[in-house]
Amino acid sequence: MTATAAASAAALVARLADGDRAALARLLTLAEAGGADTQSVLTALHPQVPSATVVGITGAPGAGKSTLTNRLIAAFRARGARVGVLAVDPSSPFSGGAILGDRVRMQDHEPDPDVYVRSMATRGQLGGLAGATPRFVRVLDAAGFDPVLVETVGVGQSEVAVAAAADTTVVVVTPGWGDSVQASKAGLLEVGDVFVVNKADRAATAATVRDLEAMLATAGPRGWSPPVLTTVATDGTGVAEVAACIEAHRVHLVASDALEERRERRVRDELRGLVLEALAQQADEVCTGSAFDSVVARVAAGSVDLYTASSDLLASER
Amino acid sequence: MTATAAASAAALVARLADGDRAALARLLTLAEAGGADTQSVLTALHPQVPSATVVGITGAPGAGKSTLTNRLIAAFRARGARVGVLAVDPSSPFSGGAILGDRVRMQDHEPDPDVYVRSMATRGQLGGLAGATPRFVRVLDAAGFDPVLVETVGVGQSEVAVAAAADTTVVVVTPGWGDSVQASKAGLLEVGDVFVVNKADRAATAATVRDLEAMLATAGPRGWSPPVLTTVATDGTGVAEVAACIEAHRVHLVASDALEERRERRVRDELRGLVLEALAQQADEVCTGSAFDSVVARVAAGSVDLYTASSDLLASER
Repeated sequence: MTATAAASAAALVARLADGDRAALARLLTLAEAGGADTQSVLTALHPQVPSATVVGITGAPGAGKSTLTNRLIAAFRARGARVGVLAVDPSSPFSGGAILGDRVRMQDHEPDPDVYVRSMATRGQLGGLAGATPRFVRVLDAAGFDPVLVETVGVGQSEVAVAAAADTTVVVVTPGWGDSVQASKAGLLEVGDVFVVNKADRAATAATVRDLEAMLATAGPRGWSPPVLTTVATDGTGVAEVAACIEAHRVHLVASDALEERRERRVRDELRGLVLEALAQQADEVCTGSAFDSVVARVAAGSVDLYTASSDLLASER
Repeated sequence: MTATAAASAAALVARLADGDRAALARLLTLAEAGGADTQSVLTALHPQVPSATVVGITGAPGAGKSTLTNRLIAAFRARGARVGVLAVDPSSPFSGGAILGDRVRMQDHEPDPDVYVRSMATRGQLGGLAGATPRFVRVLDAAGFDPVLVETVGVGQSEVAVAAAADTTVVVVTPGWGDSVQASKAGLLEVGDVFVVNKADRAATAATVRDLEAMLATAGPRGWSPPVLTTVATDGTGVAEVAACIEAHRVHLVASDALEERRERRVRDELRGLVLEALAQQADEVCTGSAFDSVVARVAAGSVDLYTASSDLLASER
């Protein structure tokens, strides 16, 4: 990291106090970039200790997570909070890019200086999702946003892991037997602190609530019984209750010392993510260039086995 | 790798020729394990050069990928092929574990010695999905299965990448405008060689076919115009045509030299995956133990910044 980069990141952090959105956007970009840029941001933020509540919102594609997130922004704004949002759901209209037919737009809130929405580009970044999310949260936190909502799709394990690293994880499902089974399969039952059956104006809502409650009951005690709420996110029904439950869960975490535990786990994940990123960068360096090309050709021709080739590539880096 | 492990893997490979399923299962487990076990398998398979056609089957959860895969097994069996299947879809009834209500069962084919189905445990393995899949394909290939069908859910980028690494990638969507938009957002349009609108007994099928064709038409020429087929996988309608299209695509690949290109790209990905795995293992070693715990505590207390902590951990490993 150059002295210039460090000074520049520090200047950007100083501008956050004035609500400077351009500085915020730039810091988030640097935080995502990895390498020296990320280093400059983390150094500039030090020694601020994160304080914002991080709320993970996850569930299968089509469950209405984005609509619910949009409504939750309004619910938290109504309580006087400044709300930050990270959309890391590749199927989300927020992060997937507006191609066609996006009815919900986070941009509804854009003129509001107390709401900031950022989507994450996760394409091709192995481990980048888990790695960059906590850094984004740190930046939004430093900019005074609390809570920070992190929307991910609960399908891949890394996406579930991101949501699970939150202080409070909201799992969104829709009415119908299949969905609660899918939630169970994807490991969402284990990570949820608050369950929401969205699109609750549909048939089968009551049955889905019962199913979820029965599944959760067999999971055994964990000091907090995850409530199962119902919402119709499209018209806002039930959303205030979800916001209230999220706050109730935070009170529980503080009272039970579980908050400190979750935060330490997050630092642990964050540190591991940085170590992995550094090593992945090393892998990228090993796996480019003419030396790599010639090894690939030899493996493809069957003249060397993959494992020997991999070991040789790694040894050549040392 | 010990001499014993190498000899044992070589003995298992020799037993594949006799259709020994226990040996096959053991080799797949070793291939997934990483480290010396994986090394023993890759060494034992060397210098066999992969020849099986690899068919990726991907799409959103609920599109009916598993049902279609099940029907494709039957279609390829009818053509006299021996069919291997890897289910790496965490929402699939095959890989997600049978919790409740699984109507489709790959196990239908289990008594058939010419069908082998394996689900992959991808939980918690950062990059493990992309890393282990080609090794599984190598083992199934060595056991004489061709084609090898790889079912993944097309949501996370790594899942899409696995499907895209196939010789032929089948993208499954369902009727309805939303789905083709989602497919586009998830990057599935770019990777698909054959598109299937499943559940084609529903309304909006024709419109979805037209949407997809229009979207694909704007993608520009790539030497192969991906066809858009319709199926009702639950009763088998249209599945034989999908199998025929997969074979037609392979003929095209061979004729255009694109097959060699895809294979080399696969070796490239595979080698990169092995390098990453070795480095990830190094990250795991760095991120465990009391030294790591004390660094985490110092970061959580704000007495050291994350980046410095990460650099120190990495430096201590050298």
